[in-house]
Parts: sequence; C-alpha cells; structure tokens
Amino acid sequence: MSFTIQNVLIPVEGGYETADVQVADNCISALALAKRSVRRRRSRRVGKPAPTGATPTKRIAPNNPPFNSPPHQGGDRGGETVIDGTNKLLLPGFVNAHTHSSEMWQRGIIPPLPLELWLAELYDFTPLDPEQVYLSALGTAVETLLSGGTTVVDHLVLIPGQELETIAAAVRAYQEIGIRAFIGPLIQDESLTAGMPAGENAIEHAAYIRSTKATLDLMESAIKQFHNPELGVNILLAPTGIQLCSDALFEGCIDLSDRQNLCRHAHLLETRAQKQLAQQKYGCSAVKHLQQIGYLSSKTSLAHCVWLDDSDIAIMAETQSTVVHNPLSNLRLGSGIAPILKYREAGVNVSFGCDGAASNDSQDLLEAIKIGSILHNITDLDYRHWITPRQSVEMASLGGAKGLNVADEIGSLTVGKKADFVLYDLTSLSLLPRTDPIGLLILGRPTNAVHSVWVNGRQIVAEGKVKTIDVDDLRRELFDRSEWTSKRQSPMVSEIEAHYRKVMNLQGYS
Amino acid sequence: MSFTIQNVLIPVEGGYETADVQVADNCISALALAKRSVRRRRSRRVGKPAPTGATPTKRIAPNNPPFNSPPHQGGDRGGETVIDGTNKLLLPGFVNAHTHSSEMWQRGIIPPLPLELWLAELYDFTPLDPEQVYLSALGTAVETLLSGGTTVVDHLVLIPGQELETIAAAVRAYQEIGIRAFIGPLIQDESLTAGMPAGENAIEHAAYIRSTKATLDLMESAIKQFHNPELGVNILLAPTGIQLCSDALFEGCIDLSDRQNLCRHAHLLETRAQKQLAQQKYGCSAVKHLQQIGYLSSKTSLAHCVWLDDSDIAIMAETQSTVVHNPLSNLRLGSGIAPILKYREAGVNVSFGCDGAASNDSQDLLEAIKIGSILHNITDLDYRHWITPRQSVEMASLGGAKGLNVADEIGSLTVGKKADFVLYDLTSLSLLPRTDPIGLLILGRPTNAVHSVWVNGRQIVAEGKVKTIDVDDLRRELFDRSEWTSKRQSPMVSEIEAHYRKVMNLQGYS
Repeated sequence: MSFTIQNVLIPVEGGYETADVQVADNCISALALAKRSVRRRRSRRVGKPAPTGATPTKRIAPNNPPFNSPPHQGGDRGGETVIDGTNKLLLPGFVNAHTHSSEMWQRGIIPPLPLELWLAELYDFTPLDPEQVYLSALGTAVETLLSGGTTVVDHLVLIPGQELETIAAAVRAYQEIGIRAFIGPLIQDESLTAGMPAGENAIEHAAYIRSTKATLDLMESAIKQFHNPELGVNILLAPTGIQLCSDALFEGCIDLSDRQNLCRHAHLLETRAQKQLAQQKYGCSAVKHLQQIGYLSSKTSLAHCVWLDDSDIAIMAETQSTVVHNPLSNLRLGSGIAPILKYREAGVNVSFGCDGAASNDSQDLLEAIKIGSILHNITDLDYRHWITPRQSVEMASLGGAKGLNVADEIGSLTVGKKADFVLYDLTSLSLLPRTDPIGLLILGRPTNAVHSVWVNGRQIVAEGKVKTIDVDDLRRELFDRSEWTSKRQSPMVSEIEAHYRKVMNLQGYS
Repeated sequence: MSFTIQNVLIPVEGGYETADVQVADNCISALALAKRSVRRRRSRRVGKPAPTGATPTKRIAPNNPPFNSPPHQGGDRGGETVIDGTNKLLLPGFVNAHTHSSEMWQRGIIPPLPLELWLAELYDFTPLDPEQVYLSALGTAVETLLSGGTTVVDHLVLIPGQELETIAAAVRAYQEIGIRAFIGPLIQDESLTAGMPAGENAIEHAAYIRSTKATLDLMESAIKQFHNPELGVNILLAPTGIQLCSDALFEGCIDLSDRQNLCRHAHLLETRAQKQLAQQKYGCSAVKHLQQIGYLSSKTSLAHCVWLDDSDIAIMAETQSTVVHNPLSNLRLGSGIAPILKYREAGVNVSFGCDGAASNDSQDLLEAIKIGSILHNITDLDYRHWITPRQSVEMASLGGAKGLNVADEIGSLTVGKKADFVLYDLTSLSLLPRTDPIGLLILGRPTNAVHSVWVNGRQIVAEGKVKTIDVDDLRRELFDRSEWTSKRQSPMVSEIEAHYRKVMNLQGYS
C-alpha cells in the first residue's frame, strides 16, 4: 500500500507547514515540507509545545488555493495514489486509552449515581449475547474513528461462561472495521460487594464465579488465541483493580505479562470509596501496594487515578506508569478531578480515554480530550501550568502510544512509524473561521470534521464515512435490539444502597 | 402557518408518550397523546422530574413501526401539512442564554489564560467591520440551532464609533436565519484596566471612550430602532458588569428597563479577581451592591455567578434573579465551578449559555448543557442532589425562558405557547441503541441528531440542514476573511500581565 497526501497542513515547532506525506509498506516513508524535505531517520514529531517566547504571527499562504477553487479529488501520479490534502490538517491518530465497549448498550439510561451504585445497575443489565458485544465494539470503534482515534483500549466485560466467545466477538469487530485494538479482558476474583468499604462491620461476600487459577488459565488461552500485533489485535492483562482483585490475581498477571511481553492495565483509585477500601485492605495506599507487588511499570497504564496523593504521584513517576485520564466519566460519576497537572509536573505520562459509554455517555475522543484539558484550569491558579492544545494532542497520541509500549511504532507523524493518522477538514463550519487549527480542533466542538482515517496504512474512513463496515446496518441492528425506556429497577442497587450511604456518611439511609 | 407533527415521542411525567402535535398561528394548538388528548388550557410541560419512587419500565411500542420501514416524508392531510415524527423526539427549544457572537472570529486562537488576560488579547484583535458581526451572528445562530437552541442571548460587543451599525448587523443576521434573539449591546463606562484589583497602589485608568450619558442615549436609540418582540428581536439592557461599570450606568439601565419593560443582563462574579475588586470598590459583595442599587429582579439574568457565597445566593433567590451557567467558559478560563447545586437548592432559576466562542470555543448548546449538568456531581457527595437529564432539559428550556421573562410564551411543549421546538432523530448512531432518549441526548454526544427546528412556528432546520440561509456561502465567507495562524502577540497582555501576576500572587512577575 503506497500513497502520498499532498499539500496538507502539519504542525511543526512554532507553527504549521504545508507538506507532502508519503506512505509505503504501512509506514510513513517521507515527509516533504514545502520548503525542505525530511526523509528517513529525521524524526519530526507533532505536539512539541511551541516556544513560549515571542513568535511572530505565522501565516500559511503560498500553497493554499482559495476555498472555492475546485478541489483535486486525489488521483494518480506515475502509478502512485495521490490524495489531496488542501485545506486539511493531518495529525497522528489518538488513542482511546480506556473504554468498555459493551457499555454502549446502557448509555443514557443509568441515572446520576456514584460508581459503586452505578456499577450495580450496570451489572444487573449487562449484555449476555456475544453478538451484542460484536455490535457495541463496532459502535465504539466508529465513534472513536470519527473523533480522531485510531487505537482503542477495550477493557472488555466478559459474559460469564462465554468468556472466550466474548473476546472473539470484539476481535472480530475490530478486525472487520480495521481499528488498532488493545483488548484487556476485564478480570477479577472477588464479588461486587467486596468493592465497597466495609464500614464498622465486616461483611461476608459471596465467592466470585470463577477461581483465580481458572481466570489466569483463561487469560493464557486468550493470549494464545487472539494476541496478534501484526493483525492489529493485542491482548492486555487487565485485572479490574484493587477493589475486586486478590494479590494472587495481580501476581499471576505480572507473570503472564512478563513471560509474553504484554502490557498491563487496571482501574486505579477512581473513587473516594476505593481509597478508603485500600487503607482497610492493605494498611497503605493502593499505589504503594501495587508498587510492592510489582504491578507498576513502564508497560502499565492505569485508568482514572483520581485519589492519589503526592507520594503516590512520586511512585507513578518512579515506576514510569501511565495515567489514563477519563474526565467525562469522572464528572458523570462524581468521582472527582484527577490531579493531571501534578502528574505532568512530576513527569508522569498521561493519556485520554472515553471510559465506557454508560459513564460518558459517548465515545467521542475529541470531547474527552477537550474536557480533560480545560477541566484542570480550575485546579491551579497559575495559567502557565495549564495544558495547551498542542500538549493535548501529544498526550492523546504519543502519550497513548507510550502507555501501550508502542511509542516507537505509532503516536506521531514520524518517518518510519506506522501510518496511523487522521485528516481533518478545515472547511467544516466547526473549524471556521480559520484561526489556529489545533487550537480550534481541541478547544472547539468539531462536527463532521474528520475527513479520512488511516490505520496501519489502510484507509478506514473517507469523506467522513467509515468504509470498512456498513454503518447503516449497524444502526439498524442497534435499533432493532433495543427499546426506549424511561426507568428501570436495579435489584442490586436496592440491595446495597443503604450500606453505601452509611459508609459514605450520606444523610438518610433509605 | 398550520401543521401537525404526527406520531412523535414527547416526554411526559414518568416516561414518554407518542403524540400528534398541532401548530396553528405560530403556537401549539393541540397535543394529542396516543391514549388521550390534551387541548387548550391544559398545560403539559416537559421537564418535570420523574417521580423518585419506583416506576415500572415503560416501553414505547404500539405506534413505532420498525426502523427500516419506509418513512412517511410528511404530507398533506385534508389541506394541512403533516410531518412524520416517527422515531423522533420533540423537545422545547433551548435558550443559549449568554454568548458574544463576534468572538467566533477568535475561537481556537487565544492561549490558555485567565479572564483578565484573555480579555486583553480578545480586545486587541476584536473585529471592526459590521459585516464580520453579521457573519459571526449567523455562525452563532447555526451552531445554536443545530444543537437544540431556538433562542440566543447575544451580549454583543460593539464596534467603537459604529455602535448602531453593529447592532443592525446582528439584527439582520438573526432575522434572516429566523432564530429568536435577545440582543444586549455590551456597554461599560470604565477602561479595561479598571477591571482588575488595584493591589497596593491605586492605578490611574484612562477615561473610557464614551461617556455614561452617551452610552445611555445610545441604548435609548437602540431600543427605539431595534426592539421588536413580534419580529423575534428583543433588546436587553446589558452593562458588562460591576468590574467596568459605574453605578450611574447601572441606574440608567434600570430606569430604561423599567420604562420600556425590558430585561436586564450582566456578567456577575466570573472570577476570583472580580470578587476582590468588588470588595475594594464597594466594601461589600457585588451581589449586595447590585441589590442595593436595584439591579436585581425577576427580569435580570446574570452570567457566570461563580464566586457567590451563601448570603449572595440568598439575595439571588430573594430577588428572583436568574443565573446563566457557562460551564465550558468557566473551565477554559479557569474561573471556577459555579455553585449550581446550591442555586437549585435555594430556588434560584438557572439556565445554560455557551458564552462567546473565544472562551468555549464552540456554540454547541448540548455540550454546554452536558458539562453544566455533570460538572457539579463532583461538588456534592450526595448523588440525590445531582442534576438529572430531565432537569437539565427544563433548565435549558423553561429556565432560559424565565430568565428572559417569557416563560408564558416559550420554554415548554404547552398548548398555547409559541411553536419553538426541536425534533431529534433517534436513529442517529449517537442516539443508539435505544435507551432513555433524553438521558442519551443530554449525557451523550449527539452528532447530526437535530432533524428539524421551528421558531415561532416557522421551520428553520429540516433534515438536519438550515433552510433559511446558505450555510456553504457562510463557510466560504468565514474562510475567505480569515487565515491560519499559530501565534500572535497581544500588546495589551504584555502590558498588564506583570500587574495581574502580582495582584493574584502568582510566582514570577515577568
């Protein structure tokens, strides 16, 4: 597969340049700027913050034909496919670094509840048909692609008794649509109620449906059967988190990830309740404990990280662990504001995730990046620490790649890296008038702005439409398999709400 | 103008019903539910919170043909226009209750800065051509309409020396496109630097370009020339706020608004710096001062209201003033989180605004509503106080109408009220699978979901496209009158930054 995107805007230090971007063998083979050419071995990354000193206004003039001149619709140049990049911006693909695809079936329906109760309702109505998992994985991929993502990390909820079938369904979806996928089957070995602080009285929890050993065996099979980076499918070791996992499960995952050279993933201190629980369980912070058992590493990415203190942050930096920031979910569930500016100051790598669609309730990566960038301005009076749009782009692309240990392969527009990138139409109303293209892409609300997407050199989206699957068919399937409801009763919420209100010191233990 | 929307989903207490909605003489003339009919004099409002007790799952079945049956594309029933509402949701139009349309020219370009410095950069590059004002008013209206809004409150920045021409340009835009408009010419009588706390040393400020009397005369002319509610154009008295206005200006506005029965608008305590300034200026809180001079009333809406304390909130409730919440701007500028749950608890009316596009950096009302709803979950541990999606809809529609003193005319699907409403396509991928339509509309990220919009019974949007203006022409104009830039130098920021850092106690007075 070989093609050139001509005359496209790309970010460079201090501004933008018009470039021709050439792809061969699924990789970026050349980046030729209007003025100078950059070929193999000279890397040119997006996302380096512009120098803070005075830079004169930079105009993109010479190569920009007016908006209303007839566009070249691509073509052929000496046998090579040519794509017209005029009035378009090319950026590396973003990583949707934490989601749970099958939550799509419950988006919009769970009322405002904190994680612990929200989770109970989620579990009560979780999809039990692998075909549903297939469809929601497609839906998750479509929304991720159309909001600038080329890679998805699916912390996949498994259907009990059909665990491998669940993974197979997601793998099928991601391969069909062509997005780069990291699937972390969501495993645990303790029952849901164990995930809440006990309060004054110790509570007996039912045994989990599957033993620790059976779960680790399952993971071994999943890796053998599905892990195939060459085909764009990767398996992660992804215990749900300290709230529902034994040390034996974490240690088994460490062992598997070391033996197979796979990345690790987990939720970490999403809620105040989990912080309380960690103290009860370990007598120290969850981060300290995970460090002690060896779970933290440069191959470990941790979703949420809302309730870490300064010493925890130092451990995250020391172990080179990645924080996956899910701002919309953290607001929706009232979890809190993750101390992202502190992570950045401490040198901790941060990326963005949508989290599952039942706590977001969408999979729009640009929305997560926007809110995950501006939210922190209220946490630090000094605006010089605030995240700039270029930094956001770097976090979403290179930061995401680092957290998955693939920063040498994807995450920037660099010669030699895989052709995972996105072309934005700068004539979309939402990106007009012309100002700073990256500023408006990140801080605005881009609508129908993604023109084309390539993953591993393969074009997945063209003219704003996903080409690899029939999205109208998908819509019809989603429609036919669902119904409008205004309210539903979750038995588990009724069962645990009084206990939750008590241990969290909320008024009225009804 | 007379038509019926048939077979459309509307929210009712405890769920949804399928209804026929009839419009005659620009008003809702009948609401016939599938089971029972509601005619004149019996109001049926959207947005009442569902009863908190147990309600069984409610399904919308009988009148819903499958997704893939051929849709009726509207038609004629005995001489009356019929619109097919199958698989669509009808809601009252939302109010974009605070914006500054001409900021569209600078969206995406101003770096992360707090209000006081951001404002300096904004002023340095403000558009000076009424034609630009016309175009950005159109752009603001298009984005508002396509995100569920039918009314816009434009706190309009005036071009010095061309004040009436500026207002005329905005009026022309709003009348052409057909959105309901409340234009509050932005007036002040003190210079920008007066808007910052003085610190230890009193600072001399340059006189403002226009006297208080000249400004009030200008407002009198504007009202005479442009205020025309019958044509959907209303003038507001809108001094920018305590930070840049004398008591004489506020009092002149009170007098004009009383004499002409017009609403009042202003910014209020957006930043910590303004709170400091109010203490310096009045020796009491800004809210107390505005109450004392008589500015607060049931016809007064105030944008931001971030830094009010409990006694200020009590005054807001007592005076029946409206808070306009602009969550995205408050995050983007690091202003803080307005205590919206406290306002609601105190009985203060709250509506939503996008604020100007240079601090948002979009005009997507659904995004503002979503973030303005979920943001507050992190401010109150008790989830029973959190805003539900139905409450959000009521705040955005009826809350907006109340703040403009037109709750008897718009803001709900009520027989006798104006036909200002929006039809959402529930087969949009972003609103699938089918769950709770309002839940997903508010908490998700609706994309291409607005199917049709009517204002005053006139159809402005059909099949997702604005019909009253040529949006492609607008895009071309915006494109041609702008250029991509990566950085620009604001002389005023350089001038005032050191002082700002000093009075706000920030490190490094560079």
